[in-house]
Amino acid sequence: MAARLGDMTQIRFALAQIDTCVGDLAGNAAKVLDYTRRAAGEHARVVVFPEMTLTGYPIEDLALRRTFRQAAWNQANELAAALAAEGLGGLYVAVGTVGTDPETSKPRNRMVVLHEGVVWAGYDKHFLPNYGVFDEFRIFSAGDRSVVIDVDGARIGVAICEDIWQDGGPVAELAERGIDLLLTMNGSPYEEGKTHTRMELAVRRAREVGAPLIYLNQVGGQDDLIFDGGSFVVDSDGTLLERSPMFMEDLSYFTLDTDAARQTPTSIAADLDPDEEVYTACVLGLKDYMRKNGFKGVTLGLSGGIDSALVAAMAADACGGGNVWGISMPSMYSSDGSKDDAADLAANLGAHYDIQPIEPLFAAFQSQLALEGVAAENLQARIRGVIVMAYSNAKGLLALATGNKSELACGYSTIYGDAVGGYAPIKDLLKTRVWELARWRNKAAAAGMGIGGLAVVGNERRDAGVPLPDGVMIPVNSIVKAPSAELRPGQKDSDSLPEYGLLDRVLSAYIEHAHGRADLLADGFDEATVDTVMRLVDRAEWKRRQYPLGPKVTALAFGRDRRLPVTTAFRE
Amino acid sequence: MAARLGDMTQIRFALAQIDTCVGDLAGNAAKVLDYTRRAAGEHARVVVFPEMTLTGYPIEDLALRRTFRQAAWNQANELAAALAAEGLGGLYVAVGTVGTDPETSKPRNRMVVLHEGVVWAGYDKHFLPNYGVFDEFRIFSAGDRSVVIDVDGARIGVAICEDIWQDGGPVAELAERGIDLLLTMNGSPYEEGKTHTRMELAVRRAREVGAPLIYLNQVGGQDDLIFDGGSFVVDSDGTLLERSPMFMEDLSYFTLDTDAARQTPTSIAADLDPDEEVYTACVLGLKDYMRKNGFKGVTLGLSGGIDSALVAAMAADACGGGNVWGISMPSMYSSDGSKDDAADLAANLGAHYDIQPIEPLFAAFQSQLALEGVAAENLQARIRGVIVMAYSNAKGLLALATGNKSELACGYSTIYGDAVGGYAPIKDLLKTRVWELARWRNKAAAAGMGIGGLAVVGNERRDAGVPLPDGVMIPVNSIVKAPSAELRPGQKDSDSLPEYGLLDRVLSAYIEHAHGRADLLADGFDEATVDTVMRLVDRAEWKRRQYPLGPKVTALAFGRDRRLPVTTAFRE
Repeated sequence: MAARLGDMTQIRFALAQIDTCVGDLAGNAAKVLDYTRRAAGEHARVVVFPEMTLTGYPIEDLALRRTFRQAAWNQANELAAALAAEGLGGLYVAVGTVGTDPETSKPRNRMVVLHEGVVWAGYDKHFLPNYGVFDEFRIFSAGDRSVVIDVDGARIGVAICEDIWQDGGPVAELAERGIDLLLTMNGSPYEEGKTHTRMELAVRRAREVGAPLIYLNQVGGQDDLIFDGGSFVVDSDGTLLERSPMFMEDLSYFTLDTDAARQTPTSIAADLDPDEEVYTACVLGLKDYMRKNGFKGVTLGLSGGIDSALVAAMAADACGGGNVWGISMPSMYSSDGSKDDAADLAANLGAHYDIQPIEPLFAAFQSQLALEGVAAENLQARIRGVIVMAYSNAKGLLALATGNKSELACGYSTIYGDAVGGYAPIKDLLKTRVWELARWRNKAAAAGMGIGGLAVVGNERRDAGVPLPDGVMIPVNSIVKAPSAELRPGQKDSDSLPEYGLLDRVLSAYIEHAHGRADLLADGFDEATVDTVMRLVDRAEWKRRQYPLGPKVTALAFGRDRRLPVTTAFRE
Repeated sequence: MAARLGDMTQIRFALAQIDTCVGDLAGNAAKVLDYTRRAAGEHARVVVFPEMTLTGYPIEDLALRRTFRQAAWNQANELAAALAAEGLGGLYVAVGTVGTDPETSKPRNRMVVLHEGVVWAGYDKHFLPNYGVFDEFRIFSAGDRSVVIDVDGARIGVAICEDIWQDGGPVAELAERGIDLLLTMNGSPYEEGKTHTRMELAVRRAREVGAPLIYLNQVGGQDDLIFDGGSFVVDSDGTLLERSPMFMEDLSYFTLDTDAARQTPTSIAADLDPDEEVYTACVLGLKDYMRKNGFKGVTLGLSGGIDSALVAAMAADACGGGNVWGISMPSMYSSDGSKDDAADLAANLGAHYDIQPIEPLFAAFQSQLALEGVAAENLQARIRGVIVMAYSNAKGLLALATGNKSELACGYSTIYGDAVGGYAPIKDLLKTRVWELARWRNKAAAAGMGIGGLAVVGNERRDAGVPLPDGVMIPVNSIVKAPSAELRPGQKDSDSLPEYGLLDRVLSAYIEHAHGRADLLADGFDEATVDTVMRLVDRAEWKRRQYPLGPKVTALAFGRDRRLPVTTAFRE
């Protein structure tokens, strides 16, 4: 609602931080209608939604289908009409969608404004990111003009995501044209530490255009990406005016006073603990992957080790302990301690718990195959994979792979064995981080956070969750004992790998920060360790490219390169 | 050797159609040296190699590694020096490599000319393909100037691959500047029917520049791409002057007479039969995948059906029957006929042949799991997958998946079961094509073509190969019997799928030509079939995106879209 009081124009913006679903045009439109209704009830004049609201984001090659673009166009028009029919036509509703370049017929990443029953000619994203997880230049053609919307005499400049990450282009044009506010819609995936980067960038752009900036971000999991929300508003001098919570849908407000030199701050969501942030990101990713793909429950092997324990805890937080089917699959090499730890975990979570010994199955295979060495170790892992998939098929459950980034990076994993699964929640967490998150989750449990009681995941605000019997989620034994694959007598991870503290530091430098051999030595790592890790990683990368393991998990890059040829003789 | 006879300048070009290996800088350079030596012996003045000769092609994100670009630069300089040291410095040796954009430090797709011990400043590819299997715009920055090389007074214009597929750019500039010959180096992957398209395009460009055009193409398999060679020269009036064979390395020659209005044709390789072409492409892809990844042999399940029979035949042609380990894994539902057909096939190929009954293993699992329906069928397939991988691990063999495109497209396959394997030779062949290729291979066998005796694969010219005992490669039973997965009593593919002739026509329209539902009905398919196939394909595409199945196989697109989100509610 615009109110002119003397000289003063106040325009109320609603920040609709929603979780869209790729391809679900009708569902996303219904959510826009719902949030707009609520925003109107709070006297908003402008409602802003995330990048590509109607289509979901990222839509990859769906954008190239003519039938999809036609359906999106129809949906936008129906939505504008529906808003007007409900008496909401007076609002300015900014939604993202897919457009078509009239000249080349290529798709475009477009913002349209729904107003008075009409889909206004939109703004097309100018800078199309083409690096890391983004392939937009492949799919879209670029817009080439800046757009200013007049709302009650206020000049609202608009931009989409990458447009503010690059110098020049539409933001520079808007700075020249002069605006009262820069409105940006974003689909910016979560990465550790990115909150700070985004804020710095927004402050720089707000200064450039000399006006407040609204940064509205998508929230929710989409395949291997997790969008963290955390939308915010900064003033032209860099003051933080508003911040929405991370990892949940939200509807917050900001009122622009076009005549004031400085705007008035409203609500600012608190920071999360770094471990809580990553844990919550993983749970949201899994939860949305299940919901958007129609899974009600999960199944996984519970070895008693820390990896499967953390994955089970995340799964319980995502879908409730009663929807988790844990399978203990002991072999002749499994310790009693491991079996007890697995049973304790399942009891803590209220999870289903079955014991399926693999010894008789292993014996049956060995009577025919008589395998030795690594082939025999892999056989055990693959028998377990067959059992997990049998549960998945028979009960319609999502199979979870429990490998962590350290062991996957080093190839300490069996393809079609422990790597089996449709989703791998901790695939992008180094082993030392796995321990940290387990400790954090237990600390939170001790402080009273029950199962599913996460601060911010999904759409539930902080509540206690389902109580944990003794205030413990993950058995302490699983955290403190020496890691072992238990595939031969007395086996320890440290027989094959450097100690995890050292290994993870080398892996972080080598695969996450792309340090070459010379860089690693300059980092102070000893030559023997560097060469061991490089050999393991290069071999494992090659094997992984040969046998794709399953979905990626978080926006954290798995390795050094996004795409490498399977066949390459180059080693560094 | 340039010879000036009166007014006439003759320049002899060597077309070095070689099979490079991605990342093998030293190996590729050694091959350039070897071919240049041979070309010098035949009095060549200019030797042209394929796109990105030194690095291999496509190098994907390897291009982004600074250490790799530095190594490529060193290799180019060492090669120029080595050529000069052998007295070959007088030749002009055109090779492809990766360069660095001095302004942005981004990689470039570059042609350099090695001459008199020096790496000449090169030409950078202008048009960077960013569709289908190509992602070059993501990786490289674009060159922005055309280049003419002076060789003995003749003006040689140069272009790289996509540069001739787009109007404008460097070729249009060269046409204005005036040239005596257009030299192009290419990495153009095989697709059925593309030979004709390339030729038409080259004729158009030769006319545009008013000069002969050399089209030098790479040959060999690289991951899921197969480069077919088939280099050629066309005159400015469209006359075919030279054509190199497909699917093998080759060194051919063409002499340019700069004073002649029309050039003199030399050798022109014969066309291949369409089935021979596709069969040979598949064998070359497998053969190079094995060679470049260090595999000497393969293992696969032999069911007695046509799919595994064709894959085994291709494998025998690729690596010799003695390097093929066939495993018969009969269940209680396997017919005697199937077991006999598998044994006959192995005998024909001279392959290793083991029988591993799965009944006792199935019984062991079932005593614990008591599965029913599809879960029990999948269990059989997964037990077989475990056995195949056990052979792969124990003997160091490449596991081959035997699924065809029709069944994979419809989801008639078990993940971690029959889909197990590091390479899937017929993944991109529809079932009807599988039958056609089997018939073609038997016809060739009857005509005397033994195992490995293909006309053109690899580097061996036509020979008889290893004789087949009765002139039969694939048992006729395997070709003529009704297809069955044999996972329950009396099961036939036709219980679950439309008849393959019809199914393949719908699949071709739906997944290869991207016809939507309305298009399919307009194509004349009945509504019930269209809806059945669309439902099967959409479900299977989703499952495949959830569980990546393994490498793609040929340059033929597998489905409608290269990349789709796993999570999408859109169905068409």
